[in-house]
Amino acid sequence: MASAAKRAKGAGDAAPHSAEEDPEALEQFDACQNEIDALNEKASEEILKVEQKYNKLRKPLFEKRGEIVKRINQFWVTAFTNHPQIAEILEDEEEECLLHLTKLEVEEFEDIKSGYRINFHFDENPYFDNKVLTKEFHLGTTTGPSSVSTTIQWKEGKNLLKTLLTKPFNNKNKRKRNLEYKTFFDWFTDNSDPVNDEIAELIKDDLWPNPLQYYLVPDIEVEAEDNDD
Amino acid sequence: MASAAKRAKGAGDAAPHSAEEDPEALEQFDACQNEIDALNEKASEEILKVEQKYNKLRKPLFEKRGEIVKRINQFWVTAFTNHPQIAEILEDEEEECLLHLTKLEVEEFEDIKSGYRINFHFDENPYFDNKVLTKEFHLGTTTGPSSVSTTIQWKEGKNLLKTLLTKPFNNKNKRKRNLEYKTFFDWFTDNSDPVNDEIAELIKDDLWPNPLQYYLVPDIEVEAEDNDD
Ligand SMILES: [Ca+2]
Ligand SMILES: [Ca+2]
Ligand SMILES: [Mg+2]
Ligand SMILES: [Mg+2]
Repeated sequence: MASAAKRAKGAGDAAPHSAEEDPEALEQFDACQNEIDALNEKASEEILKVEQKYNKLRKPLFEKRGEIVKRINQFWVTAFTNHPQIAEILEDEEEECLLHLTKLEVEEFEDIKSGYRINFHFDENPYFDNKVLTKEFHLGTTTGPSSVSTTIQWKEGKNLLKTLLTKPFNNKNKRKRNLEYKTFFDWFTDNSDPVNDEIAELIKDDLWPNPLQYYLVPDIEVEAEDNDD
Repeated sequence: MASAAKRAKGAGDAAPHSAEEDPEALEQFDACQNEIDALNEKASEEILKVEQKYNKLRKPLFEKRGEIVKRINQFWVTAFTNHPQIAEILEDEEEECLLHLTKLEVEEFEDIKSGYRINFHFDENPYFDNKVLTKEFHLGTTTGPSSVSTTIQWKEGKNLLKTLLTKPFNNKNKRKRNLEYKTFFDWFTDNSDPVNDEIAELIKDDLWPNPLQYYLVPDIEVEAEDNDD
């Protein structure tokens, strides 16, 4: 490693030498640095193990939560439409479609840094034949970055990508569209920039860890009225 | 908690009801979510403990490294001037000053997320009387965000903040200045935006973990010439 020191650029000739030049110092530095690097590696491995352990512990709770969700009317579509950023890409007809979304799952890969997938489980519905739509992110250094989405088997005349993207925006709710995706299914099928998929990250890191806050709409306006009375 | 559900916004009236309305489902959801939240809390605490453990293990190695560094001529000023972003804010006269920098220290607070400090230890030098200049970042929710820098006791006529910031830039090396700070001491004394202190973060997360890569300049140009021969 010290042999890599082909040239060490001195900053100036006016340097005060607090000690004589010491040819062994660089090698000792490198040896010490290697010990630091090894500790960093061990720390990363230990943290990964903690994350994996808690992912295992959380898994049955997420599954239990998923079963409870099925007993709550329109849970996921309500959480989606109440989420400020996700709502921006939801067209009304997509909301109708997401009424058939019965289960959401976010699964991190065993080696957490290598990626994750989002599974959307659907009931029988008038829009497509798939039971599950999956968007999967490969972010590891060997396999990624890339993302891939299930091909949607649209029923005849029900392809929301065609009907929504070709007609002028039927934007009744006057939502602002700050995001790059035009509609929900435009997002779902867009795999052009997997490392900056804002909607996927919001689902994984914000909606999925605690969706109840979005399902429950704090009734701020009513409270304000109460104060005025 | 379920009492906070003042209004749950339904997404549409055309919803298919896969099950009867279940008044206990929200409460069961909330109980399940509390278990998930508790696990998240435990995971964060465990990860913090791992980080603290390894910070303790690394500390003597960083101290050892700091002693070895003192035997390497102009180590820190060379690493600074070879670092692409830090070099951008280094004026020539500041490099002369940093020839007297004998020791660099980055110390994370015991509760890592609450902040860190960078200590610059100096020899007797012609510029100021301080032995140590510290820039300290308080980023915790209770104490921060704020940063504070040691007041520099400039020797007469040697205040680099005055001499460098009032004269036109003496930018011999024609470095690009993409950063918001004009000079090194301008950065050191600027505490206006502690959460976006790019230089401090580069020192903490990039230079400090492995400074050797910046001290050693890979001799790319010479290698290219060799290939041409
Ligand atoms: Ca110089
Ligand atoms: Ca609707
Ligand atoms: Mg679910
Ligand atoms: Mg040192």
